[in-house]
Amino acid sequence: MAIRLDDRDADFEARFAAFLTTKREVSEDVDQAVRAIIEDVRTRGDAALVDYTRRFDRFDVTADTLAITKAEVDAAVAEVPAATLSALELARDRIEAHHARQKPDSDRYRDALGVELGSIWTAVEAAGLYVPGGTASYPSSVLMNAVPARVAGVERLVMVVPTPDGKLNPLVLAAARLAGVDEIYRVGGAQAVAALAYGTETIRPVAKIVGPGNAYVAAAKRRVFGTVGIDMIAGPSEVLVIADHDNNPDWIAADLLAQAEHDTAAQSIVMTDSAELADAVEAAVERQLARLPRGEVAGASWRDYGAIILVEDLARAMPLANRIAPEHLELAMTDPEALLPFVRNAGAVFIGHHTPEVIGDYVGGSNHVLPTARSARFSSGLSVLDFMKRTSILKCSPEALRHLGPAAITLAEAEGLDAHARSVAIRLNL
Amino acid sequence: MAIRLDDRDADFEARFAAFLTTKREVSEDVDQAVRAIIEDVRTRGDAALVDYTRRFDRFDVTADTLAITKAEVDAAVAEVPAATLSALELARDRIEAHHARQKPDSDRYRDALGVELGSIWTAVEAAGLYVPGGTASYPSSVLMNAVPARVAGVERLVMVVPTPDGKLNPLVLAAARLAGVDEIYRVGGAQAVAALAYGTETIRPVAKIVGPGNAYVAAAKRRVFGTVGIDMIAGPSEVLVIADHDNNPDWIAADLLAQAEHDTAAQSIVMTDSAELADAVEAAVERQLARLPRGEVAGASWRDYGAIILVEDLARAMPLANRIAPEHLELAMTDPEALLPFVRNAGAVFIGHHTPEVIGDYVGGSNHVLPTARSARFSSGLSVLDFMKRTSILKCSPEALRHLGPAAITLAEAEGLDAHARSVAIRLNL
Repeated sequence: MAIRLDDRDADFEARFAAFLTTKREVSEDVDQAVRAIIEDVRTRGDAALVDYTRRFDRFDVTADTLAITKAEVDAAVAEVPAATLSALELARDRIEAHHARQKPDSDRYRDALGVELGSIWTAVEAAGLYVPGGTASYPSSVLMNAVPARVAGVERLVMVVPTPDGKLNPLVLAAARLAGVDEIYRVGGAQAVAALAYGTETIRPVAKIVGPGNAYVAAAKRRVFGTVGIDMIAGPSEVLVIADHDNNPDWIAADLLAQAEHDTAAQSIVMTDSAELADAVEAAVERQLARLPRGEVAGASWRDYGAIILVEDLARAMPLANRIAPEHLELAMTDPEALLPFVRNAGAVFIGHHTPEVIGDYVGGSNHVLPTARSARFSSGLSVLDFMKRTSILKCSPEALRHLGPAAITLAEAEGLDAHARSVAIRLNL
Repeated sequence: MAIRLDDRDADFEARFAAFLTTKREVSEDVDQAVRAIIEDVRTRGDAALVDYTRRFDRFDVTADTLAITKAEVDAAVAEVPAATLSALELARDRIEAHHARQKPDSDRYRDALGVELGSIWTAVEAAGLYVPGGTASYPSSVLMNAVPARVAGVERLVMVVPTPDGKLNPLVLAAARLAGVDEIYRVGGAQAVAALAYGTETIRPVAKIVGPGNAYVAAAKRRVFGTVGIDMIAGPSEVLVIADHDNNPDWIAADLLAQAEHDTAAQSIVMTDSAELADAVEAAVERQLARLPRGEVAGASWRDYGAIILVEDLARAMPLANRIAPEHLELAMTDPEALLPFVRNAGAVFIGHHTPEVIGDYVGGSNHVLPTARSARFSSGLSVLDFMKRTSILKCSPEALRHLGPAAITLAEAEGLDAHARSVAIRLNL
């Protein structure tokens, strides 16, 4: 079912290169529709939100009922089973503890010339968190997006979530409560993104918008980028498992299917030096698929995008893995630490037989918002840094300016910027 | 000429809010043209580059002469006056020293449950640097973009620069040499961005593209974002000078004009509690404008976008400054350190009377690529971090998995993701 490549084949490089460029997403051209929605929200504010919510979510909301009240959140929390709530709390606490280590330090120092330099890190003042409605409405994603913002020191954390037909997942509200979200509005789609970026009568604008969404949400985020900051545009999820011969094929198959069940466009790849293991994993995938509630989704993903890559030697695996630049990389082998120093492009690495990627989805403590579609070559998972920004500082004494000024004047003149040169020269009586 | 606002006026808030939303850029709609250019480069490679270069830069280039040779760079460097070269070297060394402090540390630790977590920082493998042609072809910008990439550890640093009518600024080549740029191609516009993102026969693709450019370059960067990483989309430059009464109005005026001479859409603002200083600065601007080579540009910027904002008390300045979120903030007062802790949104702060912003443009050591158009509310100046990415790591022992597994299973089941739950359960014999 899944494609099979073997690095001993003469055409391997060509087939691998083609595999790397496989498009897994049909990009819907929704940009014109989104442009109109954004303009409408900018012009009509709450009234536009009310109209779009009626039209797209089939739900009658008014400006007064856009906000989800504290009582509604209380009621949702009361509905959540105790075991689920305590699992969410464990996840929240672990995410918080890990992300606290990411907080950058401000820096200030004086160099040999007496110039003072530095960087001051501060939090974004207000952040918006988009949460999808329906089946992709995951409480774990609420924690993964909101907790780093809180750790960064964001003062105002605003969540928007569509409620198709008025229905909302109580787990999402419980996660929002646990993560310290301040405001929640029952609005979704491009209209929600526009409201967060430009504000309406009811929703004050934010400076940064994060969180996953459908094609409309992604297009809206691209459009408002610049007015506000945005996180990455996430694509379908993917995993690459590098496995040696000594593995339980059922474990590997289970990990491949956990990824595949997300989406028919998800991608699961196993790379191994053991043809025997490859065959066993392939058979295990088929066996397990038959019993999976989301078997149809997972099966389509495995059939269309799954891959088994045989390598002559595991030492050849990491260079190929770095070209794939997977969102999730599992090192399922006896000595995974030997490969770790060669990891260059990956969103997250899961080390050893006892670290299924799913642990990272929920309770590991690291973030599950990770770069997809080979973007780990140039970007990172969501972190505290995404909710902070750096202001650089510079301070010259009169002496330091005398040291540096002439070179600045020389360069300004070389660039034909006389007013630049004069702003220094005037202070040096030149 | 410039607008004048006074925070004691009844309509101040309304006028200030309107001032904040002033658009300074006419956004050209070049997206369709850019889309076609990118497609053409993807399809025809070098041949498309050759055609567009002939058409837009009026210059006959072939696939063989796209690259600027080492000999050409040698010749350019030989043309640069010694004083300019040594000023560039000073700038390079200071930028390098400051940016070296920005390199993040990888982190690995074991928590109380025995779970190992961490972050591994690695450099982007290849970066592309866009350098504009013509009058905006600044050697200082080459250093500011290339040096942080080198400090980050980027192995391959590729510069593209258009050569309209075959002309190229030797200073730009000298700066590239000093900054350690490996490859230089004489191509610009959307076609150069496409070549960097997708590659051609001659130009291998990169993972990240940085550097300023015109509307076509900006639109192309937006379009290829996702395939490669990009830096921010820079707008016209701006400065806010907060000044108390004890200032030399000529110095302040010179700083305002240094910003204004960049572009008719640049913005210079002075905020002060002294009406007397405000008047004196305004008069000094007019006097200096008369003698400036770029007086026409600077005059238009000051007339159309310049502002004098009077505040009753300097304590009221910082909250307003944070709403403006200026690219450059000068604190020109007797006790600037007293205001510094209240800076929240600014690209860079220049402290005290002897730190004109121009020092930061060239030789301060901090980066001059900074967030414009209020984007300092959510983004930072260019840094080493822009050329690095973080891979998170997670490692569970069998015991740690036994501790964490049940909560992961609970959450996976609550989200309806059974294959997720099974990937953990299978390892715990559940």
